[in-house]
Amino acid sequence: MQFHHHGYVSRDPRVLPAAAGGIDRPNDLPDEIDVLIVGSGPAGMLLAAQMSQYPTVTTRLIEKRAGRLELGQADGIQPRSVETFQAFGFAERIVAEAYNIGWMNFWGADPDDPTRIVRTSRTADYAYDISEFPHLIVNQARVLDYFAEAAAHGPGRIVPDYGVEFVGLTVHEHGEYPVEVQVRYTAGERSGQERTVRAKYVAGCDGARSGVRAAIGRVHVGDVSQHAWGVMDVMVDTDFPDWRIKCAINAEAGNILHIPREGGYLSRVYVDLGEVAADDGHRVRQTPIEEIIRKANEILHPYSLDVKEVAWHSVYEVGHRVTDGFDDVDAGTDRDPRVFLTGDACHTHSAKAGQGMNVSMQDGFNLGWKLGSVLTGRSPASLLATYGAERRPVAQQLIDFDREWSSLMARKPEEISAEQDLATYYLATAEFPSGFMTQYGPSPIVGDATHQDLASGFPLGKRFKSSPVTFVADGNAVQLGHHARADGRWRVYAFADAPRAGEASVLADWAEWMQHGEDSPLRRHTPASGDIDAVLDVKVVYQQAYDDVDYMAVPEIFRPHTGPLGLMDWEKVFAAGPARWNESDIFTERGISRDGAVVVVRPDQYVAGIFPLSATAELAGFFAGVLLPAR
Amino acid sequence: MQFHHHGYVSRDPRVLPAAAGGIDRPNDLPDEIDVLIVGSGPAGMLLAAQMSQYPTVTTRLIEKRAGRLELGQADGIQPRSVETFQAFGFAERIVAEAYNIGWMNFWGADPDDPTRIVRTSRTADYAYDISEFPHLIVNQARVLDYFAEAAAHGPGRIVPDYGVEFVGLTVHEHGEYPVEVQVRYTAGERSGQERTVRAKYVAGCDGARSGVRAAIGRVHVGDVSQHAWGVMDVMVDTDFPDWRIKCAINAEAGNILHIPREGGYLSRVYVDLGEVAADDGHRVRQTPIEEIIRKANEILHPYSLDVKEVAWHSVYEVGHRVTDGFDDVDAGTDRDPRVFLTGDACHTHSAKAGQGMNVSMQDGFNLGWKLGSVLTGRSPASLLATYGAERRPVAQQLIDFDREWSSLMARKPEEISAEQDLATYYLATAEFPSGFMTQYGPSPIVGDATHQDLASGFPLGKRFKSSPVTFVADGNAVQLGHHARADGRWRVYAFADAPRAGEASVLADWAEWMQHGEDSPLRRHTPASGDIDAVLDVKVVYQQAYDDVDYMAVPEIFRPHTGPLGLMDWEKVFAAGPARWNESDIFTERGISRDGAVVVVRPDQYVAGIFPLSATAELAGFFAGVLLPAR
Repeated sequence: MQFHHHGYVSRDPRVLPAAAGGIDRPNDLPDEIDVLIVGSGPAGMLLAAQMSQYPTVTTRLIEKRAGRLELGQADGIQPRSVETFQAFGFAERIVAEAYNIGWMNFWGADPDDPTRIVRTSRTADYAYDISEFPHLIVNQARVLDYFAEAAAHGPGRIVPDYGVEFVGLTVHEHGEYPVEVQVRYTAGERSGQERTVRAKYVAGCDGARSGVRAAIGRVHVGDVSQHAWGVMDVMVDTDFPDWRIKCAINAEAGNILHIPREGGYLSRVYVDLGEVAADDGHRVRQTPIEEIIRKANEILHPYSLDVKEVAWHSVYEVGHRVTDGFDDVDAGTDRDPRVFLTGDACHTHSAKAGQGMNVSMQDGFNLGWKLGSVLTGRSPASLLATYGAERRPVAQQLIDFDREWSSLMARKPEEISAEQDLATYYLATAEFPSGFMTQYGPSPIVGDATHQDLASGFPLGKRFKSSPVTFVADGNAVQLGHHARADGRWRVYAFADAPRAGEASVLADWAEWMQHGEDSPLRRHTPASGDIDAVLDVKVVYQQAYDDVDYMAVPEIFRPHTGPLGLMDWEKVFAAGPARWNESDIFTERGISRDGAVVVVRPDQYVAGIFPLSATAELAGFFAGVLLPAR
Repeated sequence: MQFHHHGYVSRDPRVLPAAAGGIDRPNDLPDEIDVLIVGSGPAGMLLAAQMSQYPTVTTRLIEKRAGRLELGQADGIQPRSVETFQAFGFAERIVAEAYNIGWMNFWGADPDDPTRIVRTSRTADYAYDISEFPHLIVNQARVLDYFAEAAAHGPGRIVPDYGVEFVGLTVHEHGEYPVEVQVRYTAGERSGQERTVRAKYVAGCDGARSGVRAAIGRVHVGDVSQHAWGVMDVMVDTDFPDWRIKCAINAEAGNILHIPREGGYLSRVYVDLGEVAADDGHRVRQTPIEEIIRKANEILHPYSLDVKEVAWHSVYEVGHRVTDGFDDVDAGTDRDPRVFLTGDACHTHSAKAGQGMNVSMQDGFNLGWKLGSVLTGRSPASLLATYGAERRPVAQQLIDFDREWSSLMARKPEEISAEQDLATYYLATAEFPSGFMTQYGPSPIVGDATHQDLASGFPLGKRFKSSPVTFVADGNAVQLGHHARADGRWRVYAFADAPRAGEASVLADWAEWMQHGEDSPLRRHTPASGDIDAVLDVKVVYQQAYDDVDYMAVPEIFRPHTGPLGLMDWEKVFAAGPARWNESDIFTERGISRDGAVVVVRPDQYVAGIFPLSATAELAGFFAGVLLPAR
């Protein structure tokens, strides 16, 4: 955490100084808005937190509910999401508060007495195999609280406009604010009043029954068949020994997905209510809580639940659907998109793989920096077309995974050929539910694989996997990736060739070019009025141990003087060699060439480019394709 | 973190429900106060946070300053203090924010050119050798913020009464509130007004020039000689390569203790201004900041500091003094103490070993639970005499250490015989500056060493050293000690003998006795109206791996039903055997007998007793000596 460089900070350093529009931000919705976010779910709230890093952009978030979410909704948090929380500054707090999934146990019918369930296998959770972060369970309400805090504490000081409902929108062909949006107040003094506001861009984060989706004429495509689930958050007295372990239970009497929750007592129980008949007309939603509890007890036999408190419950039917487009532009249309769909507004599926909230958040993370870059003049508006191009395949992949997982989960015992099927599928696909299977294809913001072999452990288009390194300045072991905060900047990691700092090297030549070269992207894309690292955050990792790096011999581009006081930044120079608390070597761990390499990472943490240190023109060309010359 | 067991918690679970006096707590100081804390430094604020766990006790904290501390003061945080923060619920947040000391480097005069300094040694910091927590640097203001939050979020909802100054006090022989205290408002509408309030107990946490100390006639005893230091918190531009590493610099031109601070830019520089002449009359305090900066540059030659901003600076003289008593009762007097001194009010010394704030906090931690126990009727008032008896030797030890460390630090190069002296002393004494050398002697609250060999790694009278174990309920590796929060309860750890849960064992007999035995301390000292673990928190550690423990066969005393819903507590049963993320075995690590043992730990985390599982009468006798029969 870096602070004090704009002057001494006495209070919580997580609260950044307000800037631009964050100073005297109006309480009421203005008539003209740069980014209007509709809905305060995980995608919308992440987007608000991200846009708060762009205080010159006027961002508002409307939510028809009168206040914060209190109960219910999603609760599964993938390691990829915890990585994202880290970038927004609250991972350590939510980890301390959440349930940490250590294991997933599987239960089935006892072959000797199929009316009884027995534990058939224990599988260790996958999280720590593929991330430094755990797999968590915590109520969505708390996730939203933390994003709300990040939004409120960012320079843009964004707070949701609760009690304002989306009514409809029209996208005009011309004008600075071409999206005309009708809203209605649902709470407070103006309740019932309608208003028209105008926006440059609208993000529809308004859930499965999205009004924004309807307004732009997009439709859900997918299964007609629906499956019903009863879900309850309960405090119980029980003799079921795995009450504090995540379990999939396939009994003769039905199926349960059992998810322990934060706080040590509460659990969420998903009870399978089966396929819904085409003519059911949502009658299944009337299933009383008593029936869900009765059914759960039947499935758990010989164990039982004595429910002491039902914190929340619901019955819902769900199919597997993806929207036919993620923005308001049809293929072949020569216009940049103005309206975007995220989260449940463009993909719906079962809750059983714990995916929904996570994929939604990554939708928001993908969209946020692109809106910010375009609206601050860093990137052309054409960047925005990459949102749908990148996220729609992810949604399709999610639906396919969930369809397979759901059908495995919902099998009757007699349909199960190999008892371990479910456990096997669960483990074989661990990378997907962790959130790490997403790989964006080549585009202006993901380079091709020409030089992938220079850093084989950073697959292009996948999220940048962190590894431990050592800060040269203080000798502490740190995670390289954790210094990439969600601040809208690109990261350029220069992995050094073999010579030491101060000796002639390809790295030294690269650094000289980056700082002074006529075609350096740093010179071309960084506004003259700001810090040298305002757009591209350039860091270096040496191959030596930290105490073999002569700090004052490190090229100046890696220790720039920034901020109003012109202080040297001490947190851009890393060492890969072993140190007291860091036995790993990132070059070995991530397959980086000992001749060095440049790894470019997007503001949303995806690997965008890999280049030899000598390929300066290629690097310049990459950035020229996504960033505009600085004004 | 356990919550939801009193009903679903939607918001931050760190905010506990207000109870008793915490509901409708009056804004203004009442006339009658159970515990009056004078001063909002580290000891006073910790004490407030602790007392907030006793909402039936009326606690107020007065501070003459009009608001929170903004700048300056102490910044060194020992691992023992981070352990303490963990017990108060904010360790992970302050660690994320603080500077983490990885190394301490030593610099001396270059033998070839004594006007120049050279690095003479690097020493790895000791923290991780003796604690799972790091050694931190963070401004005292932030430590106080976190304790203030803990006080405000505890059931007692304690907030400081800023702008109220201590004037004087009289201890009367009789009456329910025998301490008559004069206070004066220093801010707000009533500024200048004096008032008298009456208290049961007063804690003087009012610093080196303590008014409470003067009021009870205690005096500082110690060196007459004073040493002067210039200290500055500065943001600089520098070519000194160790600006982000803690350093002791012994140059020909003088001495510096250099402490990097939180945020990545700021450092604190202590510049030695030498012994103060007896007739100086505090003239040294007039040393201008320019002179301190000039002197620092002279010492650092050939490196230099270009100071861009001085956040804070001070010049102070300090001796080594301990007060002649830590409370208002003289030896031989037959009365329990009513007034206590803590922190700088009873021990003053140099700032150079980073001790002051830490020892002060432990003063507060030692006193808090004792006041809480007495005022809630759990313990006799005689318990309060142990405060001074325990803490005064610690203060003396601190002064002795600091005197030696200071004189080593202040040597001239020609006085240094072995260049490594300082580094050697630093490492050899690491346990002290970490905060772990404190060992309280036998008393009613520290048993004798008869059975020490049953748990040799938990020395009686020293703080309970945590070790990793596995939660049986969910298979997660956790730190055993981290489940002991600063809630005023005693911990009773039953380390099992070899048989498994459900088999006949000494442990099973002990558990039966603890739950049902006529002389069980649980039965004798727990109020009938509350939870069974309200006073004694009884946990078990089995020798097996977590999946070899049959949860429902564990004796009921280790899985009690508590709270208004009567829910089973799943967080009292641990396994020592290896699990996925836990290769350690606490029996081996802490030298615990495979025949089992009972380890009793005080509310302030010090080991109070070790007993064989079979020694039930001894255990009952121990508690009978410190706890009263429940009312």
